[in-house]
Amino acid sequence: MNDPYTPSGPEAFDRLWAELEPLGRDPGSGGYHRHAWNGSDAEVRAWFTEAARSRGLDVRADRNGNLWAWWGDPGPGAVATGSHLDSVPDGGAFDGPLGVVSALAAVDELRRRGVRPGRPLAVTVFTEEEGGRFGVPCLGSRLTAGEISPERARGLTDAGGTTWARAMEAAGHDPDALGADPGALADLDVFVELHVEQGRALEETPHPVGVASAIWPHGRWRMDFTGRADHAGTTRLADRADPVLPFAHAVLAARVLAEQHDARATVARARVVPNGTNAIPSLVSAWLDARAADEDALEAVVSGVREAAGLAAREHGVGLEVAAESRSPLVSFAHGLRDRLAAVVASRAPGPGVPVLPTGAGHDAGVLAAHVPTAMLYVRNPTGVSHSPREWARPGDCHAGVLALADVLQDLLARPAREERG
Amino acid sequence: MNDPYTPSGPEAFDRLWAELEPLGRDPGSGGYHRHAWNGSDAEVRAWFTEAARSRGLDVRADRNGNLWAWWGDPGPGAVATGSHLDSVPDGGAFDGPLGVVSALAAVDELRRRGVRPGRPLAVTVFTEEEGGRFGVPCLGSRLTAGEISPERARGLTDAGGTTWARAMEAAGHDPDALGADPGALADLDVFVELHVEQGRALEETPHPVGVASAIWPHGRWRMDFTGRADHAGTTRLADRADPVLPFAHAVLAARVLAEQHDARATVARARVVPNGTNAIPSLVSAWLDARAADEDALEAVVSGVREAAGLAAREHGVGLEVAAESRSPLVSFAHGLRDRLAAVVASRAPGPGVPVLPTGAGHDAGVLAAHVPTAMLYVRNPTGVSHSPREWARPGDCHAGVLALADVLQDLLARPAREERG
Repeated sequence: MNDPYTPSGPEAFDRLWAELEPLGRDPGSGGYHRHAWNGSDAEVRAWFTEAARSRGLDVRADRNGNLWAWWGDPGPGAVATGSHLDSVPDGGAFDGPLGVVSALAAVDELRRRGVRPGRPLAVTVFTEEEGGRFGVPCLGSRLTAGEISPERARGLTDAGGTTWARAMEAAGHDPDALGADPGALADLDVFVELHVEQGRALEETPHPVGVASAIWPHGRWRMDFTGRADHAGTTRLADRADPVLPFAHAVLAARVLAEQHDARATVARARVVPNGTNAIPSLVSAWLDARAADEDALEAVVSGVREAAGLAAREHGVGLEVAAESRSPLVSFAHGLRDRLAAVVASRAPGPGVPVLPTGAGHDAGVLAAHVPTAMLYVRNPTGVSHSPREWARPGDCHAGVLALADVLQDLLARPAREERG
Repeated sequence: MNDPYTPSGPEAFDRLWAELEPLGRDPGSGGYHRHAWNGSDAEVRAWFTEAARSRGLDVRADRNGNLWAWWGDPGPGAVATGSHLDSVPDGGAFDGPLGVVSALAAVDELRRRGVRPGRPLAVTVFTEEEGGRFGVPCLGSRLTAGEISPERARGLTDAGGTTWARAMEAAGHDPDALGADPGALADLDVFVELHVEQGRALEETPHPVGVASAIWPHGRWRMDFTGRADHAGTTRLADRADPVLPFAHAVLAARVLAEQHDARATVARARVVPNGTNAIPSLVSAWLDARAADEDALEAVVSGVREAAGLAAREHGVGLEVAAESRSPLVSFAHGLRDRLAAVVASRAPGPGVPVLPTGAGHDAGVLAAHVPTAMLYVRNPTGVSHSPREWARPGDCHAGVLALADVLQDLLARPAREERG
């Protein structure tokens, strides 16, 4: 029986989006600096908690600081959907929040349709998905999945030297409780993450919503080029050990190798020490972000960059250490679940079929996929721009995403528990 | 008549050095972050004021925050000597402080020798010589010489956005008083700066002390590469406007051009915005430090870097603006004064003649040289390393520097006022 007092999913989406969008937005750039445990993060977590409670959902933070809002009692056979609320530095409004807001709006849509779930439904918010503050992406989901040790997580530091443990504690969470939560994951029958597309594949189709096929293998490598501090004006070129030079070679090599292997390789972050105009640096640290369609291509790119950087470093008398800071293997989402989602989404699609797309972006869904049957929906991004204040999706496409997610959840909730677990 | 109660110059040097060396030293790196108006700067200024007053010198800050310690009443015909106490970020102990400590020690040496100056002698400390905080080197001497406007100086900002005006005011100096001081410079008959050598030319001779011939023309250019923020994992290479790539090309071009023109060109400082591992930057700002033996070579290097950077920027759809932040023409020190210094220094030298050397490093002496007959002494640097915690000079060479400076000052003070002015 329909409930006329509950707003439709699209109506709920618009209200929730209007509440969330201003929180922590930089008035200059229009971007966001929502990073784990900072002030903007506290604001958006408080917003989520209130939005979920006002819908009668029971909100809990798990041992790793991820939020779970429950419709029905937590337990076996649960269906979960959600994303994250943190951003990259000066990031956009959609990457993460679109999935959380759509999930809450889908709950309203299900209520309006009179759905009474026979299985528990959770709306989730994972912590530090972007790694924008502590450098390791998907940290909240990795901790819960047991893919990073509590010891390593506690010791991660931000740019100001604050540890994850101290930042978490200051935000009112106990860092001693950190760790894997296999019981919570075993209770989940399925996890669905809705996300803004980070590319323009859907824009070339009539479809506002697509389904994920795979997440490219990807990772982050830190390169430390160690030179010798010296006077930039007086030191003869031959006497220098200038770490900026091999760093520049590595940047250009990454681009060439990405082209050769139809991959992505980017150096978007660097730290120069001491960073004085007339002081040859003693150290340049640079981070390589690399992704490719398969493991062999990724390995070829990373080992190529490492080799080019090493060669240039030796030429300039500079030391080089390369360390993988994170590494995510290829994720192929469960085929049966993916096909069922595609069929459900197709029922409302404006054209035949539904695009099934791979992506180069990592997601909490990619981490959970090793433990829980997992799927993703993408909402069309007209410019393809992401990780930028200019990231955007059309309101109509966002509404289509909410309805597609509600359809998918309704379908999953109506099926017998444990079915997706096979 | 000798004064047995005053220490010799070398003895005074050792005591003064021991007092100054620990102030503001980073316990980790062993380097210094003494920048205009910060806490370490206040410490070293207080130390200088006390050291000068305890010698009976009258210490005054001028309108630009430079310190002048007077032996005798300020007025026409004055002889001045000194250097600076600020450092580059994580700089060494000698660049600047060696000239200030040697000047105070030379005063003691002159007193011990019974010298009674017939002309006023000033020991000077110029502010923000390195430009380590506000980006413009020799800012204190440039202001006094009228080579930078008070308006521009007041508006210079540090990395945290604090203006020179506000920082100066917080340190107890009136920023409204900033400006040229032609009267003070007209009163000076001569300025002598002692400095640690920033190279290894003296190390290849038996001489602990040399005399300057010239300062290479040099400057700092800021290059702003403006790209488009985007997701590093998902944006196709062809769709990117990644400013890191033309920045890397500029770094490598600077090195090649410096080699071609027997010059120095260095990119040692960069700012990447937003500097997130998986976010293609919207902006890279980089600073080019370039120096050459003559103006043509310098121009060839800078225009070559500008051209290479512009070409690479266009190729990658990136915007580029280049602005000169400072520019210093060739300084040839007054030949007559230079030859007299060389003759005085030779009288105590361990071998025939005295090395007369050009340098690629800028100095307050280079700024003052356009207004006052100016000379420089260099003290041998066994490694040539400068702008680094590893910067060093042998104690015996520092003592030789003090005695050479005392000899030079004694010679100058004994001559009739205005002689150097011709």
